[in-house]
Amino acid sequence: MHDSQPAAHVFDAAVALTPQGDAYAGHTSTAYANMVGPFGGAIGATLLNAVMLHPDRLGDPLTLTVNFAAPIADGAFSVQARVMRTNRSTQHWMVELLQDGQVPAFATLITAVRRDTWSETDADFPLAPPPAQVAQSPAHPRAAWTGCYEMRFISGMPGQPASDTGGHPSETRLWIRDQPARPLDFLSLAAMCDAFYPRVLLRRSSWTPAGTVALTTYFHADAAQLQAHGNAPLLGAARALRYNKGFFDQSAEMWTPAGVLLATSHQVVYFKE
Amino acid sequence: MHDSQPAAHVFDAAVALTPQGDAYAGHTSTAYANMVGPFGGAIGATLLNAVMLHPDRLGDPLTLTVNFAAPIADGAFSVQARVMRTNRSTQHWMVELLQDGQVPAFATLITAVRRDTWSETDADFPLAPPPAQVAQSPAHPRAAWTGCYEMRFISGMPGQPASDTGGHPSETRLWIRDQPARPLDFLSLAAMCDAFYPRVLLRRSSWTPAGTVALTTYFHADAAQLQAHGNAPLLGAARALRYNKGFFDQSAEMWTPAGVLLATSHQVVYFKE
Repeated sequence: MHDSQPAAHVFDAAVALTPQGDAYAGHTSTAYANMVGPFGGAIGATLLNAVMLHPDRLGDPLTLTVNFAAPIADGAFSVQARVMRTNRSTQHWMVELLQDGQVPAFATLITAVRRDTWSETDADFPLAPPPAQVAQSPAHPRAAWTGCYEMRFISGMPGQPASDTGGHPSETRLWIRDQPARPLDFLSLAAMCDAFYPRVLLRRSSWTPAGTVALTTYFHADAAQLQAHGNAPLLGAARALRYNKGFFDQSAEMWTPAGVLLATSHQVVYFKE
Repeated sequence: MHDSQPAAHVFDAAVALTPQGDAYAGHTSTAYANMVGPFGGAIGATLLNAVMLHPDRLGDPLTLTVNFAAPIADGAFSVQARVMRTNRSTQHWMVELLQDGQVPAFATLITAVRRDTWSETDADFPLAPPPAQVAQSPAHPRAAWTGCYEMRFISGMPGQPASDTGGHPSETRLWIRDQPARPLDFLSLAAMCDAFYPRVLLRRSSWTPAGTVALTTYFHADAAQLQAHGNAPLLGAARALRYNKGFFDQSAEMWTPAGVLLATSHQVVYFKE
């Protein structure tokens, strides 16, 4: 059999949507499976993709808030994107993932036409040796999605002896990119923002069930700035803030090697004990 | 005229909702007016209140994401809250503010039944002198809502000569509580999380129009923990991360004087130039 189409990148296949009436049809990806159900980052990127594909979209993604409301079963789903409001340069969206008549995940997001303004970064660029000086970690045997990322942990790898976390007890710094390498875009950046292990696993000596319940990402670049990045690794840094009564929050930053902060991301995570 | 009912606190009056069919009726508050339209913190608290009042609510607020989609006119509005998903201990909500057939603001939020677990704080308690040692700032003459808060700026007050910001160029630390004092609850805590001026005003010598487009707050306490706090001031700290192409993000923490982190909050803000 001959096929003149090059095979889609595994990530593009995972977040692919096909028009289906006024909605889109999608399918979970075995490559991006998590211990239970799909990797949340791929689901969030898929919900974002419904807006990227939408003919009414205005501008580039500015925010993405994903609610993981219930377990997503392996298999088919549909995605519906609805414009809540269109302004001159911003647009607010509601996106729902439907499976068996239920809504196990949904997202609100804002797109915006970005324009040149004063630009500055107040966050500190994390200290890190270049990627080539950091060993690549093997994939986690029980989380297939980790095999879809080249991850080079500088500090804060769960299950490893404590290394330098700069005095912060739940910080991870790592170089990360798609595996195989793939040019950066909003979809892959959105997914990578959810690629940090739950911080509670760094803080507790015993393993505890944990899972993201909601995630909010802010994009600090437009499509041209992401495209200019190419497929180089990003420097990711994540920290937790507080654990209490069954939930904690963690915040992440995604930087280019040159020190440009491309996205900041925050999530609240359930943990059992 | 005699009235045996004590007058409602100005904040309770601002976020009050009256059942109206399967929705609620509300009204903007002149006390919480901003330079243009209402103070976003009061609107977010009002949307949260629709869930607090809802007979189907399960547990306490865990997350609140508010989208400010369009200008809200002074006057009446209605609020509709819809359960997206109810699990055993969490519940996902969509709340819309309707005015003249439009949706200028909406929110997604999660409520959860909190239970005792391991508890820890990774964020650093900000350095601060006690409230009595910090002068109270006058209200901003063009933002009525600032008169509804007792604010004692330790550092990072816009328009004032730069003081110690701990080396961070856009940090504010302040003691804040409702004015007059009011026992803390989820509604007032949600509003206070939006009481930090746009960080760009600390960074730019000239004034630039700026306004929140979306705000996400994570609550790290249950109702009993908030009630135990009483009406003492909270220590708030806020910082920006990156400004680029018309938008920036800022993150805030709300602490008790004893060093308990009650909420963390993140927002993306439009700025003009």
